[in-house]
Amino acid sequence: MNDELNGARSLAQTLVNCGVEVCFANPGTSELHFVAALDAVAGIRPVLCLFEGVATGAADGYGRMAGKPAATLLHLGPGLANGLANLHNARRACTPVVNIVGDHATHHRRLDAPLTSDIAGFARPVSAWIGEVTSALAAAAEGARAVQAARAAPGGVATLILPADAAWNRAERAAGPLPDPGPAVVPAATIEAAARQLRDGRKSALLLRGAALSERGMEAAGRVQAATGARLLCDTFAPRAELGAGRVPVERIPYFGEQIVAFLQGLERLVLVGAKAPVSFFAYPGKPGWCVPAGCAIDHLAHPHEDGARALADLAQALDAPPTPAVRMPLQLPDLPSGALDAVRAAQVIARLTPEHAIFAEEAITCGSPLLASLARARPHTHLPVAGGSIGQGLPVAAGAAIAAPERKVVCPHGDGGAAYTLQALWTMARENLDVTTIVYANRSYAILNVELARVGVGMVGERARSMLDLHHPVIDWVRIANGFGVEASRVSTGEEFAAHYASAMAQRGPRLIEVVL
Amino acid sequence: MNDELNGARSLAQTLVNCGVEVCFANPGTSELHFVAALDAVAGIRPVLCLFEGVATGAADGYGRMAGKPAATLLHLGPGLANGLANLHNARRACTPVVNIVGDHATHHRRLDAPLTSDIAGFARPVSAWIGEVTSALAAAAEGARAVQAARAAPGGVATLILPADAAWNRAERAAGPLPDPGPAVVPAATIEAAARQLRDGRKSALLLRGAALSERGMEAAGRVQAATGARLLCDTFAPRAELGAGRVPVERIPYFGEQIVAFLQGLERLVLVGAKAPVSFFAYPGKPGWCVPAGCAIDHLAHPHEDGARALADLAQALDAPPTPAVRMPLQLPDLPSGALDAVRAAQVIARLTPEHAIFAEEAITCGSPLLASLARARPHTHLPVAGGSIGQGLPVAAGAAIAAPERKVVCPHGDGGAAYTLQALWTMARENLDVTTIVYANRSYAILNVELARVGVGMVGERARSMLDLHHPVIDWVRIANGFGVEASRVSTGEEFAAHYASAMAQRGPRLIEVVL
Repeated sequence: MNDELNGARSLAQTLVNCGVEVCFANPGTSELHFVAALDAVAGIRPVLCLFEGVATGAADGYGRMAGKPAATLLHLGPGLANGLANLHNARRACTPVVNIVGDHATHHRRLDAPLTSDIAGFARPVSAWIGEVTSALAAAAEGARAVQAARAAPGGVATLILPADAAWNRAERAAGPLPDPGPAVVPAATIEAAARQLRDGRKSALLLRGAALSERGMEAAGRVQAATGARLLCDTFAPRAELGAGRVPVERIPYFGEQIVAFLQGLERLVLVGAKAPVSFFAYPGKPGWCVPAGCAIDHLAHPHEDGARALADLAQALDAPPTPAVRMPLQLPDLPSGALDAVRAAQVIARLTPEHAIFAEEAITCGSPLLASLARARPHTHLPVAGGSIGQGLPVAAGAAIAAPERKVVCPHGDGGAAYTLQALWTMARENLDVTTIVYANRSYAILNVELARVGVGMVGERARSMLDLHHPVIDWVRIANGFGVEASRVSTGEEFAAHYASAMAQRGPRLIEVVL
Repeated sequence: MNDELNGARSLAQTLVNCGVEVCFANPGTSELHFVAALDAVAGIRPVLCLFEGVATGAADGYGRMAGKPAATLLHLGPGLANGLANLHNARRACTPVVNIVGDHATHHRRLDAPLTSDIAGFARPVSAWIGEVTSALAAAAEGARAVQAARAAPGGVATLILPADAAWNRAERAAGPLPDPGPAVVPAATIEAAARQLRDGRKSALLLRGAALSERGMEAAGRVQAATGARLLCDTFAPRAELGAGRVPVERIPYFGEQIVAFLQGLERLVLVGAKAPVSFFAYPGKPGWCVPAGCAIDHLAHPHEDGARALADLAQALDAPPTPAVRMPLQLPDLPSGALDAVRAAQVIARLTPEHAIFAEEAITCGSPLLASLARARPHTHLPVAGGSIGQGLPVAAGAAIAAPERKVVCPHGDGGAAYTLQALWTMARENLDVTTIVYANRSYAILNVELARVGVGMVGERARSMLDLHHPVIDWVRIANGFGVEASRVSTGEEFAAHYASAMAQRGPRLIEVVL
């Protein structure tokens, strides 16, 4: 027994024992013992964030790349509140996150001091699991449970509330990891049934998500396609996808409901592999929300908590499929553009010049479609979009991904409206010298909302309403802002300029920001 | 009946009818009909914010100054989530806020699209009232209820959930205001009892908050003091206080628990006037949380929902008190300092040069005590601190206060750590040309946490833990960041420089930022 051991250190050591290597922190007074523990315990890297939404978004990016949870460290209910939007995204991405929230000492709560709030209440809408360390002696066990809960397939946010006295009081030991059974195996009967159905000649598609979209899953899906002719689909905002040359082509479901309807037209069977049936992102008057064709059968090959990659491999075997996919994406790099930039030309620069195995933390919104189109035949890369639709996640996800995969270049193509939400991530990129190149698409508007205005059926719009979607007054100077946070930055407005600056960013390590004026 | 009337417009017109004049907005697709309504309906000013925490903090600042609610406009659960921390502050400040949260169309929710979440769950910990517009026909009635709920004494956050179809479907009419009975009147028997008790010679103090800290309340409290010798106290973070020369002196309760204990030592009676008994902000091992001396009686002259100002006036009359207070703060301006700056010298500049009737949206943290000490005898002003302890509120509160009181200079003295949370407020200040001078105290650390480290009993702290409280790597360049958001800015490091730049800021209208290097 260690005389120095307190609840905080017992918890920190337990997290390390359970494989947690990083803690994205924005601490306050009630978390100081845990901060000290991050120093005393070897094997966990504290990463300071200036805002909680950066910490939670980075934990999401880390978890999507590492396949295991990082911890956060947040300051009571309001600190958690600032991190909730990106925890919503993490929830939708099924990212494992151990979300540690400090609280007042247990005896202090009844006094209703100003920072007292309903922490569990704040946490509930985003958490797969909520626990509380009721005493320092319980810190180890609760910590191990939190990691187990975060890792439980398909992965989720496990919120652990750590009262200050449970951190500072004496503890006895740290705990080791609890069992992690991994994702459930899809029963053979389900595989056999799917194989039978896919042989019946109906027009079928497999909708892949999670492990099914890993390289292993896609290889198997490609074999199933080779055997059956089934289409391979993924969600508009599939949390993680392996894309580019050499990969099995997967068709991405489009964004708008009526586009989805057209995209799925004629489909007779939709086989879900870790996914849900597609719906439109928003509702619009008189437009479809449910997008699966009438009469199309919906089958589940794998539920989200099941091993979709293995199910696909088993299905390929049951189908006696060829050993390799019939189709792979060719490498086809666009020419570099010249002259004024638009979303298509900017995408050509990025697709042409990004090195192999880059990670795209992408929140390009209206500039996203041209980018994905260009990247489809670019060098192989990983794509991490905003899985839950809550904007302001790209920069933090980029930071977290860079920490999870330090040997890979991270590119963060971001709309300017969304980039303003959690821009403090730039500071963490500078502080940790993260290898992230941020591209801000400066169209100086909430461009998507101008598209949506007509779609939701707003007729005539006056000047004041139109101004609510416009970011020209004043123009945000992203170069100054990035510099202000310690990140090297430049502004480009032609293809030539962008290519030069982007090539330079790809050739160096460390954070860069390029504002692309559209 | 207006053929054009939909739920959104019916709600917007109802808000105007109920006295709501401003809407701090960060809209998305599901709020576009309400955005259009803000244009179609005269009398409500939309103010665009780049982040929801700016919108909610601005609504708090507005409500504290205007004494009536502004509306917010937030985008579904995650948008609300980003605004929760400052709604927590508003809750603690008892600020009236009509918090409008758009949601998916009612028929779209069951599809569980990516942005779907438990909006009421997010809202519950901060809301005094939660309502939902279940159809366009109900928008007017729910809107009127929301305003009534926000205004119900002592004021609170009324969250109104507005599904997209309830916004776009046809409505029949707008509603007028529901009755607002105002704060309850304290019964005569309570006044009489208090008067009797205060005559008994025990050492007494009146703890004032809310209306009791208005000029009217303080005048009456000063008369009670003249008649009884009672001390007049206010909370460390009283949401609004009228301070400076000519005002009745009110002793501010100190921050740390043991300071509070010393401050209250010998007190035999604490009379609460809209306040709660003081407790320490945080818990510390072995230090007091409850700070009222043993044996000290605690009486309520007015509960928070009662009219504390009137109760004090009635009490003064029952005591046959003199017609005016015996003591008033003298005007005593400090000399301007020279040479290197520290918190005391910076405070001297501010106290000397700030014009009459300025509003201080103050989040100076470790620099706050010297500032308040210098300001106590400066020109009369209004003080708005972070009532709920959730940092990142100063800049938004300043923006909201400037909109509520455009004829008054707003000064926002802010710690640099806290200023990084909701810095997007600078853009709204530039866009709306708000008369706010922001002072960033650049000590480049979470200085308060260095103080707290020793207090919470963390012994030896290693370099990694210490680095979690340090903001030097990299240094944040507030001048570039302010410029990046369109705000004129400068950096000073001597008394002479600060005086010159601050005097210039006081002499002009419009946003300025001065980074004070400490």
